[in-house]
Amino acid sequence: MATLIVPAALPDVSEDVEQLHKAFSGWGTNEDLIITILAHRNATQRKMIREVYSSIHGEDLLKVLDKELTSDFERIVHLFTLDPPERDAYLANEATKKFTSSNWVLIEVACTRSSDDLFAARRAYHARFKKSLEEDVAHHTTGDFRKLLVALVSSYRYEGPEINAHLAKSEAKILHEKISDKAYADDELIRIFSTRSKAQLSATLNHYNNDFGHAITKDLKQDPKDDYLKLLRATVKCLTTPEKYFEKLLRLAINKMGTDENALTRVVATRAEVDLGRIKEEYYRRNTVHLARAIDKDTHGDYEKMLIELVGAENA
Amino acid sequence: MATLIVPAALPDVSEDVEQLHKAFSGWGTNEDLIITILAHRNATQRKMIREVYSSIHGEDLLKVLDKELTSDFERIVHLFTLDPPERDAYLANEATKKFTSSNWVLIEVACTRSSDDLFAARRAYHARFKKSLEEDVAHHTTGDFRKLLVALVSSYRYEGPEINAHLAKSEAKILHEKISDKAYADDELIRIFSTRSKAQLSATLNHYNNDFGHAITKDLKQDPKDDYLKLLRATVKCLTTPEKYFEKLLRLAINKMGTDENALTRVVATRAEVDLGRIKEEYYRRNTVHLARAIDKDTHGDYEKMLIELVGAENA
Repeated sequence: MATLIVPAALPDVSEDVEQLHKAFSGWGTNEDLIITILAHRNATQRKMIREVYSSIHGEDLLKVLDKELTSDFERIVHLFTLDPPERDAYLANEATKKFTSSNWVLIEVACTRSSDDLFAARRAYHARFKKSLEEDVAHHTTGDFRKLLVALVSSYRYEGPEINAHLAKSEAKILHEKISDKAYADDELIRIFSTRSKAQLSATLNHYNNDFGHAITKDLKQDPKDDYLKLLRATVKCLTTPEKYFEKLLRLAINKMGTDENALTRVVATRAEVDLGRIKEEYYRRNTVHLARAIDKDTHGDYEKMLIELVGAENA
Repeated sequence: MATLIVPAALPDVSEDVEQLHKAFSGWGTNEDLIITILAHRNATQRKMIREVYSSIHGEDLLKVLDKELTSDFERIVHLFTLDPPERDAYLANEATKKFTSSNWVLIEVACTRSSDDLFAARRAYHARFKKSLEEDVAHHTTGDFRKLLVALVSSYRYEGPEINAHLAKSEAKILHEKISDKAYADDELIRIFSTRSKAQLSATLNHYNNDFGHAITKDLKQDPKDDYLKLLRATVKCLTTPEKYFEKLLRLAINKMGTDENALTRVVATRAEVDLGRIKEEYYRRNTVHLARAIDKDTHGDYEKMLIELVGAENA
């Protein structure tokens, strides 16, 4: 359930390109015009705008945007305009760099995308960074973190609905044993989380809950400050209930003293065309406040306008 | 350098289909006709033949072939006729089954195919087996073997020519340290072998050879009977000199008392359209006998005919 709204009657791509070019011309930049266009075109349309812009004006639209815009507004326009696989590659690459490193972003890209979308991101990573995603992830992590993250970003999970109930039961038992032994980075546990289909994993975790009396995420909270355990809980949530994972990320980002623009921008830019509608529902259910209202209270200026256009009005 | 020969003037696909159908009709089967057609069509052509056969005769050509043919001849016709990604998926799946298990086949599929071809095999695996390849590999292996094999089959290596010389030197040193410590399944060693591009790995292994005075495969021979070490050597060879790996496989298969038809069939069926020309050169250089002559001496009947048609005459 996307929140992106594309007008029924669209101008020609070349018309969009001319309007954007005009927005950059003369004194100052016409931010409203940029928002009106870019926040209301789908991935295919944005890609064509970028291509036509480059062929007419001899410059990459993204580079022009970076020159003309600043700060959080620049980042959300840049991220949203990127083609989704390229955007995931870009975010994942940032996440492996020293000063912007984030295992959370890697988990998100690895676990909330479809198998083909994750693969498209790996392919885009080759093209843009002349390396493989797993190569950078492996190089920039160590120990248990590496073991988990490399397996997750390399996965290409089966996506059919078939479930093996016998296997679900036996693997729930394995997970329970390993967690009881605090063997959180055990090969078997990582194998199950990183190779099974999401449908199969859900069945396994239901068995876990039924047979052992707790949700697995509860049992993974034994030491709430352990960063690896936090990551493991995020893995489980991203794989089984991504809308809840993203709701919480937004909640923490907005409630944080000063707002975590980085997370807010990322969730809106990556989910607006996918499942931000579901995330909004979840947000309202958990906070009794519409996401748009919460964003409105916490942000301002062109950044706020762009976010609200992508999130949509308060009809969660 | 493929050895497959496709006639310059090809009949219509429907003509091929009718000829094949005729080959199965009446008393007995016309094996020569089957060989003439199927051993001389490329992957796209074979795929179309299969599609048209199924739409005209309502049966999968591969099933008909399995019914009509037997033994080694059946296997090579079946394997060669399969579309390459489906064939790799089929071989890899066999390799994870109890009675046909083979870590060698997994290494071959993971390390001698291009990144996109390996990925195409993973996709075909989903379609055919309703599971992921890595899921089955992980489930059917344990310990160090699993660690190595899952990482290799999940890889999507960068394929550009760029090399980081500094990295090659430092990773050669890491490899040397780990091997000196007999830490053959160390995370770092597996990371390097399973994520780096083939070009980067070659540079690293050249540094290894120059800086430490031995080829890495020599140093991985400390215990020649250790199965894991054998597999590690095969990994290195498949990644850096696949034609030498396949030459040796053919040599051992042919020299073995009774011939190892399984390996012979696999190499010919999987490489005829890729690099069997190079492998033949290598075979002649190492054995002073043409591969076709060696096959001719060791096999017979329709099986031999099909092999020779695929391998080509003695103009290595």
